[in-house]
Amino acid sequence: LNRTTVGILGVGAIGGSVGLRARRNGDRVLGADSQATALKEARAVGAIDTSVSAEELARLSDVLVIATYLEPTLKTIERLAHSAPLPASLIIDVASVKLPVVQAAAELANFVATHPMAGTERSGVEAARDDLFERRAWAYVPSGDEALDRRARGFIESMGAIPLAISAEDHDRAVALTSHVPQVVASCYGTLLRAGDDSVEELCGPVAAELRRIAAMSFGMWRDILRANSANIEPHLRSLISKLESTAEALLAGDIDGLATLFGEPRRQ
Amino acid sequence: LNRTTVGILGVGAIGGSVGLRARRNGDRVLGADSQATALKEARAVGAIDTSVSAEELARLSDVLVIATYLEPTLKTIERLAHSAPLPASLIIDVASVKLPVVQAAAELANFVATHPMAGTERSGVEAARDDLFERRAWAYVPSGDEALDRRARGFIESMGAIPLAISAEDHDRAVALTSHVPQVVASCYGTLLRAGDDSVEELCGPVAAELRRIAAMSFGMWRDILRANSANIEPHLRSLISKLESTAEALLAGDIDGLATLFGEPRRQ
Repeated sequence: LNRTTVGILGVGAIGGSVGLRARRNGDRVLGADSQATALKEARAVGAIDTSVSAEELARLSDVLVIATYLEPTLKTIERLAHSAPLPASLIIDVASVKLPVVQAAAELANFVATHPMAGTERSGVEAARDDLFERRAWAYVPSGDEALDRRARGFIESMGAIPLAISAEDHDRAVALTSHVPQVVASCYGTLLRAGDDSVEELCGPVAAELRRIAAMSFGMWRDILRANSANIEPHLRSLISKLESTAEALLAGDIDGLATLFGEPRRQ
Repeated sequence: LNRTTVGILGVGAIGGSVGLRARRNGDRVLGADSQATALKEARAVGAIDTSVSAEELARLSDVLVIATYLEPTLKTIERLAHSAPLPASLIIDVASVKLPVVQAAAELANFVATHPMAGTERSGVEAARDDLFERRAWAYVPSGDEALDRRARGFIESMGAIPLAISAEDHDRAVALTSHVPQVVASCYGTLLRAGDDSVEELCGPVAAELRRIAAMSFGMWRDILRANSANIEPHLRSLISKLESTAEALLAGDIDGLATLFGEPRRQ
């Protein structure tokens, strides 16, 4: 029997979901994590078969998935690029910003930078699901090596996801708008909500609850992302601020037709 | 058999949900709406037993629920206050802003201003559900008449909801933050998303999708609310803008510790 060995570095919500799905696919799944409790839990929920050290993981995996936050991902890539040749025919990361990853991985063989467009506000392997990626887009930055890119697409499809080829620059610009700006807005809004009184708590409708849910996402993860992608986030944030400024002014002036125009609505009949 | 007759003016998502629940409770439900197609659909989905004219509704209802947008709600209250005494022992509205309603209803007997904290981004009776209010807060502004307020609480509880007494001023201040500001933010963000290119479309994660969902809510409803509550919305919006400005500056400066402080996070270890 010739099973693929999938190695996962970092058994959080994403890494754990990769593991659950790979095991469902019949792969052997190894996991490594700097936190022993995370590994224990990953075994308990069936996200990995066996826990090993990061060094063993690199030596034993056919497919190596680096599923840590951005900064540790960059450090791992650097370490792997300077170690002995690895057996893995495919190494991917899953970080939310791609240009620094692509730059760091310039000398790492068989590496493809990727980003699954599926997430959960909950972190840790207890938030992992074997269908987390089902029918979701999973972006990858083509390496230029067609055989390698085909392996990357095959792995993405084996996760139930839809491979989406995109340049690192286009990816980082797009997610600044679709992911990083909403996170910043939700975080800022969350501080306003927390400063409110009891009636604010009681009168939270579904929308505020959702923004609060987003705001509760780990700042540990977002810190690296915001820093790495600030050049793309900042202009979008300025555009949003400018829209909000115009809205505040229209509200103050009672200019409701102006609001409609701001929101891209047809004028009032 | 002595059934309560519940009259619903405006068989949209909220009015329809009231109707579905009242019929489940065994009440007779009458509906009136300026749109004949809405009434037909309300009958088809079982949200009302019979459709009548607005005048008949006022003459025939034991409990009268005004479930229209804010502006028509104010007009209806004015009309009812100047008509012959009504048989209804309870008249409520469900609009999202309470001070103008309370002021308009000063001379309407048996009226209690209310606001169910449950909503749906979809409008129309096809979005109605008989459990829309289940275990949700349903705010009401105590009228000062204890017997009347008891009837209002009883009706709210019959909808499966939790009655929450609050002054009109406190309500309007709270929902400005919990409901109206998020709507404004989502609408402004929606215009940025729509201006994006194809990769933006493909890389929308769950958060952007949720904001887009919120942005898609009917501006027809929001227009009246934003106008009526602008004095409460504008200061919250300014606070949010100021937070976002500081965030943009911290991003530009690479000041990630500053971001953590802005978001109310513990400092980086």
